[in-house]
Amino acid sequence: VKYLEDFAVGDVLNYEAGPVSSEEIMTFAREWDPQRLHIDPEYASALHGSLIASGFQTLVHVFRPITHDLMPQLANLGGLGVDELRWLQPWRPDEPLKVKLEITSITPSRSKPDRGVLVYRVEARNPRDEVIMTLETGVMLKRKGTAAA
Amino acid sequence: VKYLEDFAVGDVLNYEAGPVSSEEIMTFAREWDPQRLHIDPEYASALHGSLIASGFQTLVHVFRPITHDLMPQLANLGGLGVDELRWLQPWRPDEPLKVKLEITSITPSRSKPDRGVLVYRVEARNPRDEVIMTLETGVMLKRKGTAAA
Repeated sequence: VKYLEDFAVGDVLNYEAGPVSSEEIMTFAREWDPQRLHIDPEYASALHGSLIASGFQTLVHVFRPITHDLMPQLANLGGLGVDELRWLQPWRPDEPLKVKLEITSITPSRSKPDRGVLVYRVEARNPRDEVIMTLETGVMLKRKGTAAA
Repeated sequence: VKYLEDFAVGDVLNYEAGPVSSEEIMTFAREWDPQRLHIDPEYASALHGSLIASGFQTLVHVFRPITHDLMPQLANLGGLGVDELRWLQPWRPDEPLKVKLEITSITPSRSKPDRGVLVYRVEARNPRDEVIMTLETGVMLKRKGTAAA
């Protein structure tokens, strides 16, 4: 298990996400975000050269390796929120993503000495090395051995 | 079709979202966010009194009526991002949500007179009238009749 003290500002973790097929883009979008850019290949291609994944689909795919590989290792008390989520470039069919996670701040709680907030920035790049999505998010982690302190 | 000019700061739209069953919470979480609070009923109940939906699931469900009912009416050029997304309270099984959308700013583009940014705040409340999630998000909309201007 990893506690708040097991991280340092500047630590970087790398993951891979996607790709999604055109069919997966349309299937997700029909349920959650049925806009023409996500469900109508002709319309999307005329405007943007291809179908484009819903921003929500991009978000959950970018987080898939983080929630599957990192989160279960953490002494995690819960996610707090997301700031400055930006969809900067389209996510197109069949493009794998490189995901970079960087720790940006570590703040022990003043009121509750057994915990603190780990904030990290996430950046996803397409195969042309363009950043397609960025965000910052925080998670409440337990601190080590605070019972004995 | 609704253009940037069809909205005013302070306009409010109301929607309903969810509920999700315990089974739906676990099914979503196994794919996207397999933390014990979302997939292990005993663990989650001991800590929080019930299973808790993943924040990502809460997000897509809150936006489901917005993407299905509002977005297709808009002269929408694309979503820009999300700020100050906060998960304030657990979303529990079988709780329908009231979703309130309020327009917070309308900013015509300086460089591109055919478009502008509509920013709105979203708030979701559970049946006990507790706010469980808030966020702010922006969308780029076309302006009316700018070709003739």
